[in-house]
Amino acid sequence: MSALPQSWVASANTGVTDFPLQNLPYGVFSTQAQPSPRVGVAIGDQVLDLAALEAAGVLKADETLVFNQSSINAFVSLGSAAWRATRARLTSLLATDGDAALRDNAALRAQALVPLADATLHLPVQVPGYTDFYSSKEHATNVGSMFRDPANALLPNWLEIPIGYNGRASSVVVSGTNIHRPNGQIKLPDQPRPIFDACRKLDFELETGFIVGRDTSLGEALSVEAAEAAIFGMVLLNDWSARDLQQWEYVPLGPFNAKTFGTSISPWVVTMDALEPFRVAGPEQTPQPLSYLQQQGKHAFDIELEVLLQAESDAQPTSICRTNFRHMYWSMAQQFAHHTVSGCNVRVGDLMGSGTISGPTPDSFGSLLELTWNGKNPITLASGAQRTFIEDGDTVVMAGWCQGDGYRVGFGEVAGKILPAKAR
Amino acid sequence: MSALPQSWVASANTGVTDFPLQNLPYGVFSTQAQPSPRVGVAIGDQVLDLAALEAAGVLKADETLVFNQSSINAFVSLGSAAWRATRARLTSLLATDGDAALRDNAALRAQALVPLADATLHLPVQVPGYTDFYSSKEHATNVGSMFRDPANALLPNWLEIPIGYNGRASSVVVSGTNIHRPNGQIKLPDQPRPIFDACRKLDFELETGFIVGRDTSLGEALSVEAAEAAIFGMVLLNDWSARDLQQWEYVPLGPFNAKTFGTSISPWVVTMDALEPFRVAGPEQTPQPLSYLQQQGKHAFDIELEVLLQAESDAQPTSICRTNFRHMYWSMAQQFAHHTVSGCNVRVGDLMGSGTISGPTPDSFGSLLELTWNGKNPITLASGAQRTFIEDGDTVVMAGWCQGDGYRVGFGEVAGKILPAKAR
Repeated sequence: MSALPQSWVASANTGVTDFPLQNLPYGVFSTQAQPSPRVGVAIGDQVLDLAALEAAGVLKADETLVFNQSSINAFVSLGSAAWRATRARLTSLLATDGDAALRDNAALRAQALVPLADATLHLPVQVPGYTDFYSSKEHATNVGSMFRDPANALLPNWLEIPIGYNGRASSVVVSGTNIHRPNGQIKLPDQPRPIFDACRKLDFELETGFIVGRDTSLGEALSVEAAEAAIFGMVLLNDWSARDLQQWEYVPLGPFNAKTFGTSISPWVVTMDALEPFRVAGPEQTPQPLSYLQQQGKHAFDIELEVLLQAESDAQPTSICRTNFRHMYWSMAQQFAHHTVSGCNVRVGDLMGSGTISGPTPDSFGSLLELTWNGKNPITLASGAQRTFIEDGDTVVMAGWCQGDGYRVGFGEVAGKILPAKAR
Repeated sequence: MSALPQSWVASANTGVTDFPLQNLPYGVFSTQAQPSPRVGVAIGDQVLDLAALEAAGVLKADETLVFNQSSINAFVSLGSAAWRATRARLTSLLATDGDAALRDNAALRAQALVPLADATLHLPVQVPGYTDFYSSKEHATNVGSMFRDPANALLPNWLEIPIGYNGRASSVVVSGTNIHRPNGQIKLPDQPRPIFDACRKLDFELETGFIVGRDTSLGEALSVEAAEAAIFGMVLLNDWSARDLQQWEYVPLGPFNAKTFGTSISPWVVTMDALEPFRVAGPEQTPQPLSYLQQQGKHAFDIELEVLLQAESDAQPTSICRTNFRHMYWSMAQQFAHHTVSGCNVRVGDLMGSGTISGPTPDSFGSLLELTWNGKNPITLASGAQRTFIEDGDTVVMAGWCQGDGYRVGFGEVAGKILPAKAR
């Protein structure tokens, strides 16, 4: 018998499910029978309805009800003691040898366990603010080589600052939301003025994002330690990008319409508590960062990542990128501390994207821009179709997981299909 | 007898008040006696409590109550027909010769009219998203001259795109909120690496902002006409800026910590209906913009603007800038249409800043960066004190008004005091 704790939800014990007892990621779901969105955790091939457990008195996170809500924000607001206590309680309720309150109550089980296949998954977090960083050295080097100077690909500030910019929170959408190809201004090299047309260089960016777990006040700077403790969990994130729009608009104030048309995240927020066993050392930082960014110990996470692309006529998706989150130069804690060091306040639910996650090898690059080197080297799908950038009807799927000994803690996936541009 | 409509609130008829019967700007206020924030309009030296009128049945904007709220968002969400009907009703209730329901009801008057001096003013809008544009040709030219190339000060995209970037919504604060000088990375020219210190080049940016009056859906592009119709009103905006942080961090993804530590707005939202008499033609646009940005007619507004600076030891503020909103190259409708053209969705309450408003003459520049030409030419205050950038204890006040015939439609002011940086 394995020492690995098992769940009485059999599908959680397969060793290959993203959602074993060790994970318990939070999401928001609804069903046809009960269309009001509420908070649940994924367990095997089921969703556990926390609002139902709360109503039944089996789960209590706070004096007030926090799970019968259309986002996890109320729960996250309770703070890390409540996160830990709820995780412990859910682990016990779902463990084979745990508390029997749910396991042995057939009526409550029938009410509270919903097959994932029957659930509609919603945006898990109400996102007050979305910030996107740029923390992969490989990605920044690739982009700098293509668009600026290969000999000085990395800008002078990159090794000092976890560079980031404000993204657009309104267009953060949940996996499965279709995205229209954006229209915008494109500057063709052979024409003196830009044209107005549908994007011709539509791309994805493989990212993760972390969810801020507490409010700070204006003027309050978090140390790297306080910042790390204030992270609730992580999601997969696809930072859809219109490269041609971006190239024309981004100097001097940064990307805008090239990014604001949609950012997709995975429906399940994997908690930092579930990710803790996969903490690893990040890359060495040279030069040593300024004092407010200095960290001792391990602050990266060993998260395997994959991108798949499927054309509308393809029978199945093709894997086009494999990489790992551990390659990121700047840690989430450093990003977060830097975000607050000027006194900028954050709020529960704020989403902070990692920036494109590219590894050291060409098959580990996290965008088509890099995989095809700005269209110069098309990639070939399993069907034989070629791609430089995303075509209409293409679906992009990103998956992520931490491989444990006999189990994995998975993120599920973030998927999105590109629809044709709207009429201009 | 003047043909100008008068109010029975005598202080509204002075001709110099910012808040005559012709204005009726919306804000959110509370009082010591009734500390729950609610919506009011400013009239002369009074605030008219719309929640009280609504409760009394004298004012009805919707089936549900929309004014007993801590932001104007619920009211704004009702749409332009409700905005117009409410304005007409309020005008009648406050006019000397209008509906007597409030004028002749002493008890209701006593309850609903609160001296401005006794009111605490709150952030009027819950701001889901904040975008800042860069639409003054004079400002863009000045900045480009200082930091890039005087011979090619305006970047090639500037005359084609109403350039904008995502700002930080969490740190939008109401006038009167003190702001700590931000800490951050500063790259001194004589040192190989940046230092971590308090900002040494703290600046204001004189801006206005408009408030979005409707939601759009993801993928929906607004025409310039639809965009203009969807603007609820305007505020004054101070885009506090840390120039030294900005110069080091902003390439390639734009300003971040240099701006996210605070953005101040005036407490009163002046409606587009109140501003309509002050509509004027904007600057000629050459080249003619791309089709989705083309407008016929008048789309600028004649809004006088002034910036005053007062050191802590000064007896009174010194006027350091006078300019006018009509100089802006890109109209608000063009900014807004451009924001949605890629499919980015907007939400009621979104705040869109104009960008620094600089006029053609040196005394009309809307930032200390320009007024002192990056510190080279200090300005002298009435007290004899000199300034290159903002010092601790300084208060910056911005005022704005439209001058009518015998009245003015004013914005009140946006004021903010700079406190010393927090300990590092």
